[in-house]
Amino acid sequence: SNLIRATLFPGDGIGPEIAESVRQRYAAVVLWAEGPLDKASLVEGKGKTGHILTSADSTCRTTLGIMIFKVAEVPIEWEEHYVGTEVDPRTNSFLTWESLESVRRNKVGLKGPMATPIGKGHRSLNLTLRKELNLYANVRPCYSLPGYKTRYDDVNLITIRENTEGEYSGLEHQVVRGVVESLKIITRQASLRVAEYAFHYAKTHGRERVSAIHKANIMQKTDGLFLKCCREVAEKYPEIKYEEVVIDNCCMMLVKNPALFDVLVMPNLYGDIISDLCAGLIGGLGLTPSCNIGEGGIALAEAVHGSAPDIAGKNLANPTALLLSSVSMLRHLEIHDKADRIQDAILKTIAEGKYRTGDLGGNATTTEFTNAICDHL
Amino acid sequence: SNLIRATLFPGDGIGPEIAESVRQRYAAVVLWAEGPLDKASLVEGKGKTGHILTSADSTCRTTLGIMIFKVAEVPIEWEEHYVGTEVDPRTNSFLTWESLESVRRNKVGLKGPMATPIGKGHRSLNLTLRKELNLYANVRPCYSLPGYKTRYDDVNLITIRENTEGEYSGLEHQVVRGVVESLKIITRQASLRVAEYAFHYAKTHGRERVSAIHKANIMQKTDGLFLKCCREVAEKYPEIKYEEVVIDNCCMMLVKNPALFDVLVMPNLYGDIISDLCAGLIGGLGLTPSCNIGEGGIALAEAVHGSAPDIAGKNLANPTALLLSSVSMLRHLEIHDKADRIQDAILKTIAEGKYRTGDLGGNATTTEFTNAICDHL
Ligand SMILES: CC(C)[C@H](C(=O)O)[C@@H](O)C(=O)O
Ligand SMILES: CC(C)[C@H](C(=O)O)[C@@H](O)C(=O)O
Repeated sequence: SNLIRATLFPGDGIGPEIAESVRQRYAAVVLWAEGPLDKASLVEGKGKTGHILTSADSTCRTTLGIMIFKVAEVPIEWEEHYVGTEVDPRTNSFLTWESLESVRRNKVGLKGPMATPIGKGHRSLNLTLRKELNLYANVRPCYSLPGYKTRYDDVNLITIRENTEGEYSGLEHQVVRGVVESLKIITRQASLRVAEYAFHYAKTHGRERVSAIHKANIMQKTDGLFLKCCREVAEKYPEIKYEEVVIDNCCMMLVKNPALFDVLVMPNLYGDIISDLCAGLIGGLGLTPSCNIGEGGIALAEAVHGSAPDIAGKNLANPTALLLSSVSMLRHLEIHDKADRIQDAILKTIAEGKYRTGDLGGNATTTEFTNAICDHL
Repeated sequence: SNLIRATLFPGDGIGPEIAESVRQRYAAVVLWAEGPLDKASLVEGKGKTGHILTSADSTCRTTLGIMIFKVAEVPIEWEEHYVGTEVDPRTNSFLTWESLESVRRNKVGLKGPMATPIGKGHRSLNLTLRKELNLYANVRPCYSLPGYKTRYDDVNLITIRENTEGEYSGLEHQVVRGVVESLKIITRQASLRVAEYAFHYAKTHGRERVSAIHKANIMQKTDGLFLKCCREVAEKYPEIKYEEVVIDNCCMMLVKNPALFDVLVMPNLYGDIISDLCAGLIGGLGLTPSCNIGEGGIALAEAVHGSAPDIAGKNLANPTALLLSSVSMLRHLEIHDKADRIQDAILKTIAEGKYRTGDLGGNATTTEFTNAICDHL
């Protein structure tokens, strides 16, 4: 068929509501789409009417089954799986084999927030997905949203985070009573891979500079190896400027003048910290898209904010991060004109400011905000 | 004698120039001091005239000898030692036994910036000082400076960083070719010690809340132990509010609304990152004091900015961080009225804005700026 299958993990908390908003968005595109798609392989899908199957439970929380969305102009057929902190009653598992297989087969997917319990002894689902699917690079574009005022109006950068190793090795133990250690692992293979992705990204997205973020003045071997790999890759991209910035200094520069940065590449924990810092500059995690790139061309786009259990089920969540992440997914599929249109509609709605969810200081519901976006398509 | 001896390490690059400014400051206090000191043990020193011995080389770069500053009203007698990245030609050493002994004996000291070469295989001098002197807590007050405009005008927080272990263990090795690891060590003893310091600080400085910053959702054992220790100490201080914040979220909150924080306590690397981020909020490391607290009551105040070799020797450096650090040193000695006076003079000079060094957008020399502060005393 000419449809692209994509996996959808609505996730926990507000996840299902905002995932619903993504589905609406793609349905809306059907109604308003104009002009042909630029990807030959997708042209056949043109003109088909949207066909949406919804599960019996509209929030999909307990539904592990597949929901299929046939959208003519943005030809995505969603395969929906529940992955989250509630155990699936059918399989008694947090994460089923089918869910992983779905992403492996489809190669593209979109996921909502999944809660990570602190200190409960079982591993974070986010981490498990990253490990299992070998999602080696986490890419987060971060730009000031026109009309949505923060203290910064000049942010336009991309953080690219190594996503599989470093401080996230999970290797920890007690040496003696009162003395514990954790291992940070850096490998040549993973460092080259993420550096290669960063430079390739910079080149294909018209970016000028890659900054490698590190603390090699302290961790000379681990961060030193990371830098060595970045330098090797940098040599293959003479057209892209390359610099190295120590993480503490990087954070200081970011809050003083984020316009100093373009593409940033870094080990796992630094990426975790800096990508959230950058999101803060433009208004928070509710507004920033994210996409995880895996071996074999897998792309799992993801809203990285929390599952916000306090407002879950109240139709108050801001779906922007998940919507923009779905745009990232479309870009990964090189469906750029659709991506542009959807992104423009989102940005226009936010800029207009008439319908804003509570986190942005407004009082619109998720539905009202989503409808306003549809109106802008 | 009734003088308090303090060790002075001018350090590298601009270090000597800004240290000179601190000496001027204390000399100036002699001329303008009014009223008695509130510490009985210091009263005898009152009325003595300042007596300053300068080394032959006015920048002190090559002088390892002791320069003695006798200042009547702020009765500090400096013992100056060169510690920096140039090898002492007399001893062929970076850091002499005498320098360490000086701090151990005097229990108070002030240090300028020391360059840390990246990947040169020898250990940072800053780290060596911390380890040798067991400087377990790094305290950095960070507040918006009236009249010096940044994007934030509501910063008023203290970062307290564990300073001896964590990611700074120095334990790293290659496992196999292309695979390296470093060890993060967290101990119950060091965690309790820094937590105790943080709560004690909060209580004695009229602060309301301590936030422990961590990544225990990922490093459950190491950061988990750190949190456990903070909780234990928190129970002994029921009057101080206690909360735990994940580091990535903390950075996002800091850039969105730093007024949310009061006292922050955290493991080594997070402290390195967050203290620089916070400095960035109010204008940079050139403006923030820092003081290292060690076992046995040692306090080594320190300017934490770089040694700025590009402007060294040009009389262009901003001495504010070192001056405010010397104020921290006075506070540690409980000479609060002098500390207040000097701090007020610094803040007034910056607020007035007539004499500002290049880093603050002005074109005053170090000397002009320092003289302006003297005029405000
Ligand atoms: C929830 C947590 C495990 C995760 C991380 O630390 O990577 C999150 O902060 C993120 O950035 O996706
Ligand atoms: C220079 C470097 C070793 C040092 C550190 O990482 O601790 C510095 O950043 C600091 O904060 O004092």
